[in-house]
Amino acid sequence: MTRSHTPKSLAVLLRARMYADPIPSPPPAPSPPASPDSSAPPAAGAASVRHWLHASVSAASPSPAALDCFSDGYRSLDSRGRHEILRSLATDYDVPRARLHDLMLQYVSVSTTGEGGDEQPGAEREEGGAASALYRMERGLGDALRPKYAGFLEAMNAQPGGLKLLAVIRADLLALLGKENAPVLRALDGYLKEKLVTWLSPAALALHQITWDDPASLLEKIVAYEAVHPIRNLIDLKRRLGIGRRCFGYFHPAIPGEPLIFIEVALLKDMATSIQEVLWDDPPIAECEAKCALFYSISSTQPGLSGINLGKFLLKRVIDMLRRDMPSVQIFATLSPIPGFMQWLLAKLASQIKLAETELQEGNSLEGASSTFRESILLPEEEKIIHNAVEQVNDKQGIELLQDVLKSSQWVKSDKLSAALKSPLMRLCSRYLARERKRGKALDAVANFHLQNGAMIERINWMADQSEKGIKQSGGIMVNYLYRLESIEEYALSYSATGLIHGSPGMS
Amino acid sequence: MTRSHTPKSLAVLLRARMYADPIPSPPPAPSPPASPDSSAPPAAGAASVRHWLHASVSAASPSPAALDCFSDGYRSLDSRGRHEILRSLATDYDVPRARLHDLMLQYVSVSTTGEGGDEQPGAEREEGGAASALYRMERGLGDALRPKYAGFLEAMNAQPGGLKLLAVIRADLLALLGKENAPVLRALDGYLKEKLVTWLSPAALALHQITWDDPASLLEKIVAYEAVHPIRNLIDLKRRLGIGRRCFGYFHPAIPGEPLIFIEVALLKDMATSIQEVLWDDPPIAECEAKCALFYSISSTQPGLSGINLGKFLLKRVIDMLRRDMPSVQIFATLSPIPGFMQWLLAKLASQIKLAETELQEGNSLEGASSTFRESILLPEEEKIIHNAVEQVNDKQGIELLQDVLKSSQWVKSDKLSAALKSPLMRLCSRYLARERKRGKALDAVANFHLQNGAMIERINWMADQSEKGIKQSGGIMVNYLYRLESIEEYALSYSATGLIHGSPGMS
Repeated sequence: MTRSHTPKSLAVLLRARMYADPIPSPPPAPSPPASPDSSAPPAAGAASVRHWLHASVSAASPSPAALDCFSDGYRSLDSRGRHEILRSLATDYDVPRARLHDLMLQYVSVSTTGEGGDEQPGAEREEGGAASALYRMERGLGDALRPKYAGFLEAMNAQPGGLKLLAVIRADLLALLGKENAPVLRALDGYLKEKLVTWLSPAALALHQITWDDPASLLEKIVAYEAVHPIRNLIDLKRRLGIGRRCFGYFHPAIPGEPLIFIEVALLKDMATSIQEVLWDDPPIAECEAKCALFYSISSTQPGLSGINLGKFLLKRVIDMLRRDMPSVQIFATLSPIPGFMQWLLAKLASQIKLAETELQEGNSLEGASSTFRESILLPEEEKIIHNAVEQVNDKQGIELLQDVLKSSQWVKSDKLSAALKSPLMRLCSRYLARERKRGKALDAVANFHLQNGAMIERINWMADQSEKGIKQSGGIMVNYLYRLESIEEYALSYSATGLIHGSPGMS
Repeated sequence: MTRSHTPKSLAVLLRARMYADPIPSPPPAPSPPASPDSSAPPAAGAASVRHWLHASVSAASPSPAALDCFSDGYRSLDSRGRHEILRSLATDYDVPRARLHDLMLQYVSVSTTGEGGDEQPGAEREEGGAASALYRMERGLGDALRPKYAGFLEAMNAQPGGLKLLAVIRADLLALLGKENAPVLRALDGYLKEKLVTWLSPAALALHQITWDDPASLLEKIVAYEAVHPIRNLIDLKRRLGIGRRCFGYFHPAIPGEPLIFIEVALLKDMATSIQEVLWDDPPIAECEAKCALFYSISSTQPGLSGINLGKFLLKRVIDMLRRDMPSVQIFATLSPIPGFMQWLLAKLASQIKLAETELQEGNSLEGASSTFRESILLPEEEKIIHNAVEQVNDKQGIELLQDVLKSSQWVKSDKLSAALKSPLMRLCSRYLARERKRGKALDAVANFHLQNGAMIERINWMADQSEKGIKQSGGIMVNYLYRLESIEEYALSYSATGLIHGSPGMS
C-alpha cells in the first residue's frame, strides 16, 4: 500500500509528490499489427492519439466521443509517447500569430486616429458606436491571444474525468520541462496552470473531515499520499483519525473520493516541541482540554497541481471550522519540517572551505585581508566546543570538522557531539529560516508556504524529529509556525508585498 | 412560500426567473446621521461601498475583510445604489488602454522586424531567447487586455459567499442593461458572464437526486423556483419526489443547499401527450414497467446565470444516470411548453391584417397583385370551418376572426370552436417550431434549448396543457422533444453548425 518515500525534501511538504500516477504499460498497438522488431518506434498509439487530438482541437465544439478517445489513448501511452503528444499540442496549436498581428495593426490604427490617447472611452462619449467597436476589437484581440488549444482544454475540463486527465497532463508536462525547457512548452504549462487555478478556485472545493467512517478506498489514498510523516500501519492511521486528532481534505466534485490536498491536526494542551509527542505519545488529552490545534502534516496528492496553492485556503477554512467547533482552542500553529536546512548548510560549508583553501594557496592568509566572500559561519566559542567534542586530533578548521560530522548522521548517537552541535545548528537554522532568501522570499519552501499564508516563525525545536529523514534534512530540528488570528491578514500582505518575515523575538 | 408566477413566457423555462433576490431595504446610513429631509439622495451607503470597492480593486490581492465589507454593503443597497456601484465598477476599472496601446506598438514592431511574418516561432528556432520574449510579451498583452476589475472578481469568487454575490451582481447588471445599454456595461457583463461560465464548469457541479429525505430548506427552494408547472402544495411536492418520479439538481460547492438548476422527470410507459397524465394521474405505474423517462420541467434558480447553459450538462448526466440505473428505460423525451407560439401567431395575424387593410385602402385588391409581404396564414378549408364555427355573422376575413377568437381565452370552453381551431393551430405551431428562426436558430427559446442539446422535435400535442398559462402561451399545445441516444451528438453538432432542425416526418 504505502510507497517508498524518497527524501526529495522540497517535494515532501506542500507540494505534490514528484512522481506521476503509475503509468499502465501501453496496450498492443491497434494497427498496424505489432511488429516483431521491438526496436521499431512504438508510434502507432501516439499517431492515433494525435488523430483524436487534431479532431478535438479543430472542432468548434469538440465531440465528447473524440475527447474520450483522446483521454483513453493518452493514458495508454508510455512517457515517450505522451511527450510527443505534448510537443504537438504546444507547437501545432499555438497562438494564431498572423491573425493576432493583423488585429493589432487594425486596433492600433483605430485607437490612434480615433482616440487621441483618451484613456476611458465608454461612459462619457455621446456616441456609443465607436466605443462598441473598441470593445469588440478588444474582445477579438483577447480571442486571438488565446492559443488554439484553449478550447480543447476547456472542453476536456467539462468532460467526466477530464479534470483528472488535465492534472495528469500537467504532471507529464512538468516532467518534460525538466528535460527540455522550450519556450513553447513553458507557454503551454503557463496557460494550463492558469486554467487549473481557475477551475480549482476555492469556491469549487469542498472541505470534508476524513474519519474512520470514510470508505476504505478514500483512507487508502490518505495512507498512500501522506508525504510528511508516513503512516506505518492501520493502527497508526486509526489514531490519526481518532480522538484528539483531525484530518481534513479538500475535494473537487470532478475528482470524487480523492482529496486534492489534506491536512492533519492534533489537539494539544500547548504547541508541541517534537513530532514524537504529536504522533505517538498516548493517550491523547481529552478534547475539551485542548488549547492548541497543531497542523503537523499537509500533503498534496496531484503532482500536476504543483505550484497551485490549495493549502492556503484549506488552512483558512480549517482554522475557521475549528474556531467555531472548539472555542477553547486559541493557538493555531504548525510543527513543520525544515526541508532545505541541511542542504543549504552543507553547501555553505563547502563553499567556505573552498574559499579558505584558495586563499591559503594564494598566500593570502593575513587576518583582515581575507576575501569579502568569507564569512564566519561558526562563532569562536562554538568552534572551540566542536574541537573539544571531536575526539580525533587534527588541525582541521571548525567548519571542516562540522562538515565531516554532519556528512554522516552518526553524530546524533553521541551525546557529546549532539551537545556541541546544538548551539551552532540552532543559531544557523534560525538564520536560515529568517534571513536566507530566493527572489525576495524565504528560501525554505515550507517557510515560504506558511509565511505567505500569514504565519510567523515562533520557535525552533532541537531534536524534534529524530527519524533518519529528519536528521538528514534538518539535523532533527523542526519549527513551529504560528497563525495569530489577529495578524494573519496583515502578515500575509506584508510578506507578499515586501518579503517581511515576522518572527518571535528569539528568531533572528 | 411560493411566489406568484407572472407569465413571462421566455423566462419561464430554461432561463432564470427575471426578478433578482428580494432586495432587503437598506439599513440606516451609518454616517452622516439620517437627515430628516427624505428627498436627499441616500448616497452614504453607496459611498461606503465605493470605498470598499476601490480598496479591493486597487490592492494586488484584495483583503478578505475588504471584500466582505463590500459584499455586505452592496447587498444592503437599493437598486439605485447598486446601479451606481455597477457603473463605477465598469467605468472606473476598465481596460488600461494607454498601457495596452504601448504594449501593442512594441509587439507589432518586434514581431514585424524580428519575425518576417513567421507563424510558428517556438519549437524550430535555434535560439530560444526571441521566442521567450515573444511569449512574455503575449502574456503581458493578455494581462493588459484584462479590465482592472478582473482581479477583484476573481478574489470575490474565492471568498465564502462570493459566487452567490457575483450572481446577484450579474442579475442587477442585466436589469440595469435593460434600461441603459452602454457599451462599457455590456463589456462588464460579457466579462463577468465569461468568468461565471468558467467557474460553473460542469466539472465543478455535483448532481444530486432530490428526495423527500432532503432538508426542508432545500425542498422549500424547489417549491419556490419551480417555474414551469408551479407546485401547489406539499402533497404535490411529495408526489413529484416519490415513486415513478425523479428530481435532480445541479449543485455548486460554493452555494450549498440550493440547486442552480433542477429537472423533474416522470417514469412512464410511453411519451406522455398531456401534462395532466404526468402530474396528476394516479397511481403512477410500477417503476419496473417504465419505458420512458419524461423530462417535464427544468427550472433555473439564479437570474444572474441567465444565458449560461447549465441545463445541457444536467440533461446529459441525468440521462447517463437513468440509463445505468434503469436499463428498461429506452425513451428519453420531454413534454415541453411552447412559450413563444401564441405571441408569434398574434403578431403575425396583426401584421397581415394591417397589410390587407393598407392594400384595401390603396385599392390594390386585385387578386395576384397583392403585396409580396402577404402570405396565406390559413388554408381555404380552415377559413371556412372557422367561419362556420363563429356563430356571429359578419364579413370579417378568416384571419380577423381567428385574431378575435384567440385574443380571449374563451374559445377553449366551446367544443365547436376548439374543433375548428385544432387543425390550423396545430399546423401553424408545427411551422413555428420547425421553421421560424432568429439569427439562424429556432425562434422559440425552449426549442432552441433542446435542439442545441441534440434533441429532435418528435410530436406536438393538442390540449396538452389546459391551464390558463398554457392556453395563453401556446393555445394549450405542448411538444415532445426526443433525445435519441444514438443521434444526440450528431444532431447537436449539425444544429450548432448549420441550424438544421431534426423533426419526425409529421413535423414540417
